[in-house]
Amino acid sequence: MVGYRRYVDLIGELAAGRRLFVSGMTEEVDRCRKALELAMDGEVVSLVSGGDPGVYGMAGLVLELNRVRGVEVEVIPGVSAVNAAASRVGAPLMHDFAVLSLSDLLTPWELIERRIRCAAEGDFVIALYNPRSRRRVEQIVRAKEIIRSHRPGTTPVAVVTNACRKDESIVITDLDNFTDEEIGMLSIVIIGNSQTERHGNRLVTPRGYRTKYADSFQG
Amino acid sequence: MVGYRRYVDLIGELAAGRRLFVSGMTEEVDRCRKALELAMDGEVVSLVSGGDPGVYGMAGLVLELNRVRGVEVEVIPGVSAVNAAASRVGAPLMHDFAVLSLSDLLTPWELIERRIRCAAEGDFVIALYNPRSRRRVEQIVRAKEIIRSHRPGTTPVAVVTNACRKDESIVITDLDNFTDEEIGMLSIVIIGNSQTERHGNRLVTPRGYRTKYADSFQG
Repeated sequence: MVGYRRYVDLIGELAAGRRLFVSGMTEEVDRCRKALELAMDGEVVSLVSGGDPGVYGMAGLVLELNRVRGVEVEVIPGVSAVNAAASRVGAPLMHDFAVLSLSDLLTPWELIERRIRCAAEGDFVIALYNPRSRRRVEQIVRAKEIIRSHRPGTTPVAVVTNACRKDESIVITDLDNFTDEEIGMLSIVIIGNSQTERHGNRLVTPRGYRTKYADSFQG
Repeated sequence: MVGYRRYVDLIGELAAGRRLFVSGMTEEVDRCRKALELAMDGEVVSLVSGGDPGVYGMAGLVLELNRVRGVEVEVIPGVSAVNAAASRVGAPLMHDFAVLSLSDLLTPWELIERRIRCAAEGDFVIALYNPRSRRRVEQIVRAKEIIRSHRPGTTPVAVVTNACRKDESIVITDLDNFTDEEIGMLSIVIIGNSQTERHGNRLVTPRGYRTKYADSFQG
């Protein structure tokens, strides 16, 4: 089993009794390479990823590195952070949504900004991965400005950190105020579309049943 | 346990021994109402949804109907169809993506078309739910035209039907040709962005590691 230390720790009992190769953040390439080398030696290897390995996870990188190797790789889907976060605040993703990472470590900021603008123009519910880190604090402010030019400041926003894990924190706020909250690399920010409603501590993006079944909806 | 017949059948053993209330498609409002009524009678009720109940599932509707009732509702996240479909064809969702439903049963087509255009302009990987039904065949053709005006016809496309289930079918094709494939209400269509690559039967949307680690990437 190969993985980022934090994620291997999270699945404690599944890791018990296995040969473990754990390493730290930013060592993704080394981990994938190690997993592929072990597989080429005939081992059955689990490469552990947080959430869904296919969403900003390890699946893409290991497949890219495997191109010259040709190891048999099976991708096992999971509950991505955005799905976990959404479940904790109601049903904000009930209608069309866009998922973006604000990290410009591997993506030019111009492209990220263009995507934020398009997602805002399309009235997508917008989910942000990697919204802010200790050193990267301006991107979330710029994202807010862009979205704010398309949606009212009262648009509901959820900030969920460590969704469905120990130390989970949940804040329901709005577009004008969410950047004042504690937001880090383990947070997901979900920004409602023009229809998203807040009811107590729940966000719901209606799908249209109320309009269609108006006669009987309250009953 | 309350649910759409098809989904309750899929979780056979979990349903065993429980009081079951199953019904057919388009009876979503009745199912949610039934689940809430049973809960108000003091029962612990599971409302079964396919994939993730928070993504075009039952979570939103039940929360909307619960507004006047105030039952305690817990949303349990799951693996949505787009995550399942992506895992079966590699890692197409490794970078920013937009999720849309092409069903205009509850959403005006003008809004859907605007969202397709924005997602295409933003170079998002695009995942389509409800891409085609027996009676609704023109929407997917129009979606293709819009996206085609922003991306080459060789852009990789995956059509995955019944992902991770019995009777799964997987087709890897491209933007110019995907509408010739068998596509139905149980299919997910994933359309690559400008960087998505096809390698054999796998799609990968690179995240940028290759550029960043160019020196050592092949090694």
